[in-house]
Amino acid sequence: MSENNEFQSVTESTTAPTTSNPYGPNPADYLSNVKNFQLIDSTLREGEQFANAFFDTEKKIEIARALDDFGVDYIELTSPVASEQSRKDCEAICKLGLKAKILTHIRCHMDDARVAVETGVDGVDVVIGTSKFLRQYSHGKDMNYIAKSAVEVIEFVKSKGIEIRFSSEDSFRSDLVDLLNIYKTVDKIGVNRVGIADTVGCANPRQVYELIRTLKSVVSCDIECHFHNDTGCAIANAYTALEGGARLIDVSVLGIGERNGITPLGGLMARMIVAAPDYVRSKYKLHKIRDIENLVADAVEVNIPFNNPITGFCAFTHKAGIHAKAILANPSTYEILDPHDFGMKRYIHFANRLTGWNAIKSRVDQLNLNLTDDQIKEVTAKIKKLGDVRPLNIDDVDSIIKDFHAELSTPLLKPVNKGTDDDNIDISNGHVSKKAKVTK
Amino acid sequence: MSENNEFQSVTESTTAPTTSNPYGPNPADYLSNVKNFQLIDSTLREGEQFANAFFDTEKKIEIARALDDFGVDYIELTSPVASEQSRKDCEAICKLGLKAKILTHIRCHMDDARVAVETGVDGVDVVIGTSKFLRQYSHGKDMNYIAKSAVEVIEFVKSKGIEIRFSSEDSFRSDLVDLLNIYKTVDKIGVNRVGIADTVGCANPRQVYELIRTLKSVVSCDIECHFHNDTGCAIANAYTALEGGARLIDVSVLGIGERNGITPLGGLMARMIVAAPDYVRSKYKLHKIRDIENLVADAVEVNIPFNNPITGFCAFTHKAGIHAKAILANPSTYEILDPHDFGMKRYIHFANRLTGWNAIKSRVDQLNLNLTDDQIKEVTAKIKKLGDVRPLNIDDVDSIIKDFHAELSTPLLKPVNKGTDDDNIDISNGHVSKKAKVTK
Ligand SMILES: [Co+2]
Ligand SMILES: [Co+2]
Repeated sequence: MSENNEFQSVTESTTAPTTSNPYGPNPADYLSNVKNFQLIDSTLREGEQFANAFFDTEKKIEIARALDDFGVDYIELTSPVASEQSRKDCEAICKLGLKAKILTHIRCHMDDARVAVETGVDGVDVVIGTSKFLRQYSHGKDMNYIAKSAVEVIEFVKSKGIEIRFSSEDSFRSDLVDLLNIYKTVDKIGVNRVGIADTVGCANPRQVYELIRTLKSVVSCDIECHFHNDTGCAIANAYTALEGGARLIDVSVLGIGERNGITPLGGLMARMIVAAPDYVRSKYKLHKIRDIENLVADAVEVNIPFNNPITGFCAFTHKAGIHAKAILANPSTYEILDPHDFGMKRYIHFANRLTGWNAIKSRVDQLNLNLTDDQIKEVTAKIKKLGDVRPLNIDDVDSIIKDFHAELSTPLLKPVNKGTDDDNIDISNGHVSKKAKVTK
Repeated sequence: MSENNEFQSVTESTTAPTTSNPYGPNPADYLSNVKNFQLIDSTLREGEQFANAFFDTEKKIEIARALDDFGVDYIELTSPVASEQSRKDCEAICKLGLKAKILTHIRCHMDDARVAVETGVDGVDVVIGTSKFLRQYSHGKDMNYIAKSAVEVIEFVKSKGIEIRFSSEDSFRSDLVDLLNIYKTVDKIGVNRVGIADTVGCANPRQVYELIRTLKSVVSCDIECHFHNDTGCAIANAYTALEGGARLIDVSVLGIGERNGITPLGGLMARMIVAAPDYVRSKYKLHKIRDIENLVADAVEVNIPFNNPITGFCAFTHKAGIHAKAILANPSTYEILDPHDFGMKRYIHFANRLTGWNAIKSRVDQLNLNLTDDQIKEVTAKIKKLGDVRPLNIDDVDSIIKDFHAELSTPLLKPVNKGTDDDNIDISNGHVSKKAKVTK
């Protein structure tokens, strides 16, 4: 090691390689629930507000059972006052005896509360709009009225011995003092949870963190969060909320909900397993995600998005030669998410012009052929050349490799290897194959 | 206003309604580039690494022209050393005379640099893996070697008078001191940009903010960021990077890239227009997003995800009765994104059991029929009842409304209205219609 090397002293660490998780919880977040969160699945409430959703009783029960089996902590259902069948379905799901607690979601109104508590639910989620917009254009009520209704509804629901959550709607456009005031009031009465909702899907992560941290200093109950995904931040906002001290996240399968939906169950699992792998693996049946997503996608007649976390068709596909090389050497190089956790498989896409010889070498091995590294580099060049002309499929590549291999193996041709002494000839599958020494 | 009203003093603000944007840049972020960012579109580089991508020359040129027309600042192309055709295509796109600057993306190696500078590009993006994982399993080089190659390549590219960016790969798993050390070195030599890359797609927003803020204190050049989307945070990470002082974000159309891709162009525009509406509207042709997405989706044979920001089929569809009511009164209640900015339309989904009478009233108006509010509530109940039995379509609802209206209009039936004195009969479209007084 020379002295004129300006990087030497800092780059090659003398300490043992750290085993800490670079994507784990931030130690500075002493209120963090990243390793202690709960899921409220709202596929049967928020998800019913998705444009394409119509769930009959049977489908609702099938979805509820699948979510329960997966391990969600709560299942939220459409208000029993939404329609007569909604009420009957709510009662039917309460009778299933699931491990997950059953919630229903109502307006902050005694008429709704009286119906809700009779359905057999374990808890009631109350929501009211507190932003100027919703107060003006939705319900027309002022904060005094909101507080008064909230207290009445909460005390009534509590008197029935079931859980109660009070949430504002459009929380990020509500006056902060109004919000804290009403949350403090309902916390004192003894709600189980207060909720923050980004109803319009425009909050950003640091804004979420600040609000949750502030709220956490005002209430002693748990904080639940609900994030819409209009600006693509619903998963990140959920994560950041947990960092700030929120405990429960509203999700739905594939994120279905109003407009383009909310935090998706599968995507949030991808996010959380990176940060809290032991907690997530021990609590949720991750390999069920694909089935649940297919169940719901079929029910609402959509396709799984091509770029869906975990289950998108290419979520674990590696293509560029340089990526494939490293992935073959150690999957962790380009993949923190382990596909096996989700019952999925890794795929190296080698049939294209960006391929590299490491990916082709892997294919040669799969084909049970033997080529030297130099030979593999030669056949890789042939593959890339064809890949420049047109899209390739696996058959194309396999043909090129097999042709190349067959030519090499024909005794009339001059051997390509440079005289290593342990070469020998295998005969397998009708091919005469040349077993080459593999250089390290 | 009574004194025993504990919310009175704080809830009804005496100040004028604030016109500030609750989703605008955080005033505490004095290095923020939220209102001053640039886009590097990498559809023709990162996007070419998407499993399904094969772009021939013609398609590359079509995509490059569309991106240029939209207004991206840079277009990044696959390395000219990836294949012979890649080099030719790079040269062809450089000759188009686009407003956007053309970049190509190479390994940190003189062999690559020599080819790149001859293609006619405006700039070269150099990348090398600095994490232990990539150093061990990808290129096998130590930090001294990396720094030495970087300096050589950077000085060579600069000598040709073109832009140069130096980026690490897998930055969030790299040793922080190593990273800052090498960035400081290349900044001193005079690179145009340094890049941070979340190659494995597992960084979280506050982690991104911290790293960018730290890096910003070490370098004077611009910072570019590249975020993969494996855990669904690529848009949020990009936003938070801008808050921390990054200037340029790598995007691709629909986010296509390795695995499930990177920050999507359209989704980032949804995020940014909320925070910096004037900047975004003045700089980018937002109404072109749909066409560009369709162009690329066709080329790589995928569907636009159902839940895609902006262009997903339901991105501006409102369903629940309570949402529809407020949206009809003022779209801003549930919609910060204005669909018209993107050449899209808002849609109120009224044909379902969750519908409310405000949505049905809007449909009655569209049908040019006249019903009192009480009548609309009555017909809404009929619609919800059928909606409980099966999925509805617009024709179902229209038939129920028209039948209801026709029955009312038949003289044999007892009038439903309660004797307002300004009722009168219109005859239009062959229907006898009853023009009712509409209560406010
Ligand atoms: Co919602
Ligand atoms: Co990338």
